[in-house]
Amino acid sequence: MYFTSDNAVGAAPEILDAIVAANDGSLPSYGADPMMAQVESRVAEIFETECRVFLVSTGTAANALALASLSPPWGAVFCHRHAHIEVDECGAPEFFGGGLKLALLHGQDAKIAPDALRAAIADTGAGGVHQVQPAALSLTNVTEAGALYRADEVAALSEIARDANCAVHLDGTRFANALVASNASPADMSWRAGVDVLCLGATKNGALAAEAVIFFDPERQADRIAQFEYRRKRGGHLVSKGRMLSAQMAAYLKDDLWLKLARHSNDAAARLAAGLRRIDGVRIENSVEANMLFVHLPLSVHRALQAGDARYYLEPPSQSDEGNGESVRVRFVTSFSTSDESIDAFLSIAATA
Amino acid sequence: MYFTSDNAVGAAPEILDAIVAANDGSLPSYGADPMMAQVESRVAEIFETECRVFLVSTGTAANALALASLSPPWGAVFCHRHAHIEVDECGAPEFFGGGLKLALLHGQDAKIAPDALRAAIADTGAGGVHQVQPAALSLTNVTEAGALYRADEVAALSEIARDANCAVHLDGTRFANALVASNASPADMSWRAGVDVLCLGATKNGALAAEAVIFFDPERQADRIAQFEYRRKRGGHLVSKGRMLSAQMAAYLKDDLWLKLARHSNDAAARLAAGLRRIDGVRIENSVEANMLFVHLPLSVHRALQAGDARYYLEPPSQSDEGNGESVRVRFVTSFSTSDESIDAFLSIAATA
Amino acid sequence: MYFTSDNAVGAAPEILDAIVAANDGSLPSYGADPMMAQVESRVAEIFETECRVFLVSTGTAANALALASLSPPWGAVFCHRHAHIEVDECGAPEFFGGGLKLALLHGQDAKIAPDALRAAIADTGAGGVHQVQPAALSLTNVTEAGALYRADEVAALSEIARDANCAVHLDGTRFANALVASNASPADMSWRAGVDVLCLGATKNGALAAEAVIFFDPERQADRIAQFEYRRKRGGHLVSKGRMLSAQMAAYLKDDLWLKLARHSNDAAARLAAGLRRIDGVRIENSVEANMLFVHLPLSVHRALQAGDARYYLEPPSQSDEGNGESVRVRFVTSFSTSDESIDAFLSIAATA
Amino acid sequence: MYFTSDNAVGAAPEILDAIVAANDGSLPSYGADPMMAQVESRVAEIFETECRVFLVSTGTAANALALASLSPPWGAVFCHRHAHIEVDECGAPEFFGGGLKLALLHGQDAKIAPDALRAAIADTGAGGVHQVQPAALSLTNVTEAGALYRADEVAALSEIARDANCAVHLDGTRFANALVASNASPADMSWRAGVDVLCLGATKNGALAAEAVIFFDPERQADRIAQFEYRRKRGGHLVSKGRMLSAQMAAYLKDDLWLKLARHSNDAAARLAAGLRRIDGVRIENSVEANMLFVHLPLSVHRALQAGDARYYLEPPSQSDEGNGESVRVRFVTSFSTSDESIDAFLSIAATA
Repeated sequence: MYFTSDNAVGAAPEILDAIVAANDGSLPSYGADPMMAQVESRVAEIFETECRVFLVSTGTAANALALASLSPPWGAVFCHRHAHIEVDECGAPEFFGGGLKLALLHGQDAKIAPDALRAAIADTGAGGVHQVQPAALSLTNVTEAGALYRADEVAALSEIARDANCAVHLDGTRFANALVASNASPADMSWRAGVDVLCLGATKNGALAAEAVIFFDPERQADRIAQFEYRRKRGGHLVSKGRMLSAQMAAYLKDDLWLKLARHSNDAAARLAAGLRRIDGVRIENSVEANMLFVHLPLSVHRALQAGDARYYLEPPSQSDEGNGESVRVRFVTSFSTSDESIDAFLSIAATA
Repeated sequence: MYFTSDNAVGAAPEILDAIVAANDGSLPSYGADPMMAQVESRVAEIFETECRVFLVSTGTAANALALASLSPPWGAVFCHRHAHIEVDECGAPEFFGGGLKLALLHGQDAKIAPDALRAAIADTGAGGVHQVQPAALSLTNVTEAGALYRADEVAALSEIARDANCAVHLDGTRFANALVASNASPADMSWRAGVDVLCLGATKNGALAAEAVIFFDPERQADRIAQFEYRRKRGGHLVSKGRMLSAQMAAYLKDDLWLKLARHSNDAAARLAAGLRRIDGVRIENSVEANMLFVHLPLSVHRALQAGDARYYLEPPSQSDEGNGESVRVRFVTSFSTSDESIDAFLSIAATA
Repeated sequence: MYFTSDNAVGAAPEILDAIVAANDGSLPSYGADPMMAQVESRVAEIFETECRVFLVSTGTAANALALASLSPPWGAVFCHRHAHIEVDECGAPEFFGGGLKLALLHGQDAKIAPDALRAAIADTGAGGVHQVQPAALSLTNVTEAGALYRADEVAALSEIARDANCAVHLDGTRFANALVASNASPADMSWRAGVDVLCLGATKNGALAAEAVIFFDPERQADRIAQFEYRRKRGGHLVSKGRMLSAQMAAYLKDDLWLKLARHSNDAAARLAAGLRRIDGVRIENSVEANMLFVHLPLSVHRALQAGDARYYLEPPSQSDEGNGESVRVRFVTSFSTSDESIDAFLSIAATA
Repeated sequence: MYFTSDNAVGAAPEILDAIVAANDGSLPSYGADPMMAQVESRVAEIFETECRVFLVSTGTAANALALASLSPPWGAVFCHRHAHIEVDECGAPEFFGGGLKLALLHGQDAKIAPDALRAAIADTGAGGVHQVQPAALSLTNVTEAGALYRADEVAALSEIARDANCAVHLDGTRFANALVASNASPADMSWRAGVDVLCLGATKNGALAAEAVIFFDPERQADRIAQFEYRRKRGGHLVSKGRMLSAQMAAYLKDDLWLKLARHSNDAAARLAAGLRRIDGVRIENSVEANMLFVHLPLSVHRALQAGDARYYLEPPSQSDEGNGESVRVRFVTSFSTSDESIDAFLSIAATA
C-alpha cells in the first residue's frame, strides 16, 4: 500500500531483464554503445521525426540540463508555480542555468492559462538590459496536480511562447501517462504542438533510473545540442557504462512497453478513485485522468490508514499531520506495479475507519 | 524637468569637491586609504554601533554581493515581487548567489506583510533536500512604490525571519529619504530592528557612484564578512583607486549632508504632489512620504508635458504610451537637486494642458 | 581484447545479482532504503571509523560534489596536472565549485611531490583578497599514470595541506587497486593519512554505475556534509530509486568483493606486462603496480594489434596514430573481468607482428 | 616615492576637470549620455575601424566580462601563468565565465611563445566532451613582467588562436605604455593583429576608475556584444550615472592625452632605470621598455629605501623581506605623475646606502 510516489518501486521485469541481458561483453562507453543508437532510432520512429536523444539518470538532471541549453543565464523560464522544476529540484535549473530565473505563473490544476502566459511575457524584459529576458516556456504533462494538457492546449501555449522567441520545454516525467489518458500521438503531444525539448521520463514508469532528453528538429537546434553534450559531461551526468541507461530505455520503448505500463498505472488510479468515492467524507479534488489523486481524507480515515501501514504524502508537506483538524489533504500516486490487491486492501481499511 | 530617476543628475557640490580634494598625492589603493577608515568610524558613529563597511560603485553590486554572503546557492531570499533585486537587476542576485532563488511576496505599496512572510517561510523548504531553504529576508526602505516601513514594521518582519534562521538584508538605496520621512534614527531603522546588512545608497542621493554595504555586529558575522571581501574582488568591485569611493562616502556622511540632501528631495516631491493635486483629472496613487510619486495623468496632460520636454517613466514600462486610452500611469522621482523652478515650470505646463 | 578502460565491461555477476535481488517491493526512495543504511555501516566497519556516505552514479559527480563542499568559489584546489579532475571532467570541479581554481602541480607518475606542494601553497593567496586562497589538496590513488601513493606518502602530503588549512580529497576511482597493490588497510590509506573525503570508486571495478563519497570524522565536517546533500540534489545526483545505487555498493563491499575484483584486475595487468616484456621493441614505461600500463609499441606491433581488433587508447590522444613514426605510446587498462585468454590472444598477436 | 603601482595616485588633472565639468545638469543614465557616444566615435577614430565600446570601473571587471563573452563555461582560455587574470583577480574569469578554465602557459617575461601556444592548444580538448575546449587566447601588453609584444608577435599568436577557432582577448591595462614604447599604431597593435576584444585601461594611466571594453568588427561579434550588455548589468557593472565613466574616458582619449601620460610614465621608468644601473650591486632584470622595473636590490639598499619611506612591492610577495639573505627582488612601477624629483630623491637614498 505504497502510494507515496511512482518511484517507490523497482523496475518493471522487462527493464530489469534488459539490464541483465546487456551486461555481457565489452562495449564502447559513454553512450557509444549500439543500444544507444537503437534508442535514438526508436525514439525517431515513435515521434515520427528526426531527433537527438541523450540519456541521464534523474529527472532533475534532465530538466535542468535541458533548460540550461534553452535559456541564457539572464533568461526567464516561464513555468507554473507548482512545477517540479520550481518546487522539487532544490534550485537545479538556477544552478545549471548559471542563475537563470523561473518566472512563476498561477493557474488551476498546475496548468498555465494562455492569458497568464501572455501577461507574464509582456511583463518580462520590457525594461531592457535591466531585466531578465523571456527565454523559455516550461510545461509539465501530466501536471504536478495530476491534470492533462491536451495537444491543442500545448500548441496554443507554444505559439505564444514562440511569438516571444521563447523555446518550449516539456517536463514529461509522466508523459506516457498523459499519452494514454489523452489517446494522443507522441508527435501531436510534443513537437507538432511546438515542443523543442522533451524530457521523457522512464524512472517513474518502470525504469530503475533513466530519463531521455529529446531534441526535436536537430538541425535548427544544433547549437543547443552541442552545448547539451558539454553540460551533461560537466554536470557529471555522462555515465561511463552507458549500457546501463541505454538498455533500460531500449526496453522501455520496445513493443510500447512504456504505454502498457502507464496504462496499468492510470487504471490503478481510476480503481482507487472509484473506491474512494464510495467512502463517506472522502473528497477527491482532481478529475483523476492519469495516475495521481489529490484527496481530502477525514482524520479518522487518515489515522486508520496510517495504522494499517499505508504510505502516502501530505500535500503540501508543510501542513500539520492533523490537517485542518477535521481532514488532511493527501496525494496518492499509483504506479505500473500497483496491484489490485493493494488497492482493495487500502480501500477496505479506509471504508471501515 | 527631469523626473525619470534620482540618477539623472550628477553629484552634489560637496561630494564633487571631495573627489577633487582627495585627488592629490599617493595613497594605498584597494580601500586601504585613510578616508576609508574615516568612513568606517563615521558609519559606526551614525549607527551607534560597531560595524564593517565596504564600498562599491553600484546598488546592484551592493545588493547582490550582500545577498550572496547571506544565502547559500540553495537558499530562498524572500522579497517583494516588485523589489529592485527582482525587477531591475537582471538576475544579479542569482548570478552572485550561485543560483539562489528569490521567493516573491505580494503586498500593497511594495511592502511585505507579516502574514505573507510567515506563510511563505512555512511553504519553503519543508520538503527537505528537495527544496531550497529559507535563507534571508530582503526589505527595501523606501520601497519601490515610494512607501515607508516604520522601524517597528521592520522589526516585526525581522523577528519572523530570525525565527526561521533567516538573515535580514535591507536595500537602502533611498534609506536617507526613509529616515527623513519617518524621523527615526539610523540605528532604529536598521540593526535595532533586526537588520544584519544594510546597503546604504548614496548614488541616488547626491554621490556620483558610491554605495556602502554595512555589516552590523561584525563578530557574529565574521564569516559573511570574510566571504564578502573575496566576492567583491572576484566580482570586479574592488576599485583600485579606493579614494574615488571613500571620498564620496566621507563627504556624503559628513555633517549629515546625506540627510540634508534627502530632505530636499522629499520636500520637492511634496511640492510636486501639492501642485499635481490641484490639476483636474490627475490622480496621485501613493501617499508621497518620500521622493517618489505614482500618478495617473490624463492623456492630454501627458502629451503636453512630453511636448514640453518633461522627462519621466511610464510605470510599468510595458504599457502603451497611450496607457488605457484615457490616462497613463507614470512615476516621478525627485532628487537632491530638483529645483522649485523646474517643479513650477512642470506644473504650469500640466495645469494648462 | 578490450584494454581501453575498466569501464568497457558491464557489472560483476555478484553486483548484477544484487540489483536484481533488490528490485522487488516498495521502498523509501532518495537514499532512505535499508540497504543504504547497511552500506553506511559496512563502510564504517571497513574503514574502522564513523563516517557519512553518499552514493552517486558517476565519478565526475563524486569528485566535483566533494570538492565543492571542501573549497569556496575563491579557493585553490591543488592537484596534479594529469589529474582526472583537471583532464577528464570537462571542468566539472569549476562548475560545481562556483568557479574555483585547480592549481596544477607537476611530478613524476602523476604523483605530487611534497616540495612541489609546499611551493605551490606558498605561492598561492599571499596577495590576500586579490588571489584565490589555498583550500584543498586533491590526490588520486592509483594515480592517472598507474602509480601508487603509499600510506606514508599520503600522510606527508596531507600534513602539508593541513598546515595550510587545506582539506584533503582523495579520488579513489581505483582505490581498491591501490589497497591490493600496497597491502595497506583502508583506514591507513585514507583518514589515518589525513584524508577528509574519499571518493570510493566502484564503477570501474565491477559496479554498473555507483560511487561512494565518504566523509570521515562527520562531526567535524558537519557543515560540509549538510552542504553536500543540497549540492547533490541540486546537481541532479540524488537518484530517486536509491536502491539502484545502494544495492550495487552493498554487494561491492560485501565479503570483500571489491578487493577480490581489484586483485583480479591487478593480476591481469601483471600478466600482460610480463608478456609484453618478452616482445622485442616493446617498452613499458611504468612499474605496473596496479591495473594500468603505459607502453611504447613499435608501429608494426600497433598495426598488427589493431588489425586483430585489439582496443586501447593512444596516450596522449592528441598524438598521431603513427606516434613518432617508429612507435606509439599507448595505455592499457585491465579490469576485474579481463580473462587470461584475452591477454594471451593479445600477446600472441603482438609477439608475431 | 611611491613605486608600488600606477594605481597609488589620483587622476590626471585633465581627467579630474572633465569629471567636474560633466557634473551639471540632467542626463540620460546607464550609458545613454552624449559623452558616451563621443567616446565611441573617438575610439573608432583612434583605432581606424568600427567598434562597440563599453565602460566599466575596474580592470578585473573588464577582463572577466570580456572573457565570459568569448568563452563558454566549458572553454579553455590560454594565458600566461603570470597573467593578471590568473594571478590577481581572485578567480573573476572563472566566476563570470561560469567556471571556465584558464590554461596556463610558461614563457620568458610573461610572454607566450608561439610554440607553447600551439602545443597547449593541441593538448586541449582532443578527448572530446570529456575536456574543456579551446575557446580564447588572452594576451597582456605590456606584460605583467613589463615586456612588450610587438604587433607582429601579437599577430602570430592570434593566427595560431584563430586557426583553432579561438577568440583573442587583449588585456590592455597598460596598452598606452605599449603603444608609446613600440611606436606602433593602435590598430596595428590590436585588431589588425587579430585581437577581437581589447580591454583598454585608463585607471592606471591617469583616470580615477574607468576601463573600456572594445569589441572590434561588431557585426561579426554581434552575439558576444549582446551577451556583454546583459553580463555587465547582471555583474553590477552598469553604472547609473554613466557620465562618471564617459567623462573620464572622453578626456583620456582627447588630444592623445592617454599617449602623453604613458610617455611620461615610460620616461620616468627609463630615468629610474638609468639611475639604478649606476648603483653598485643593483641588478635590473628586465629591459625596461615601458613603466615597470624588476630589480634585485642588495639588502642594504632595500633597508635604506624602506627607512626613507620609499614604497614598492616585493615580487613575488611570498618571499621573505630578507629575500635570499643578500638581496630582495622587487618591482617598481612608475606612473603618469611620477616626478623627476621623487626619482632623484629615491636614487639618492639608494646610492648612499
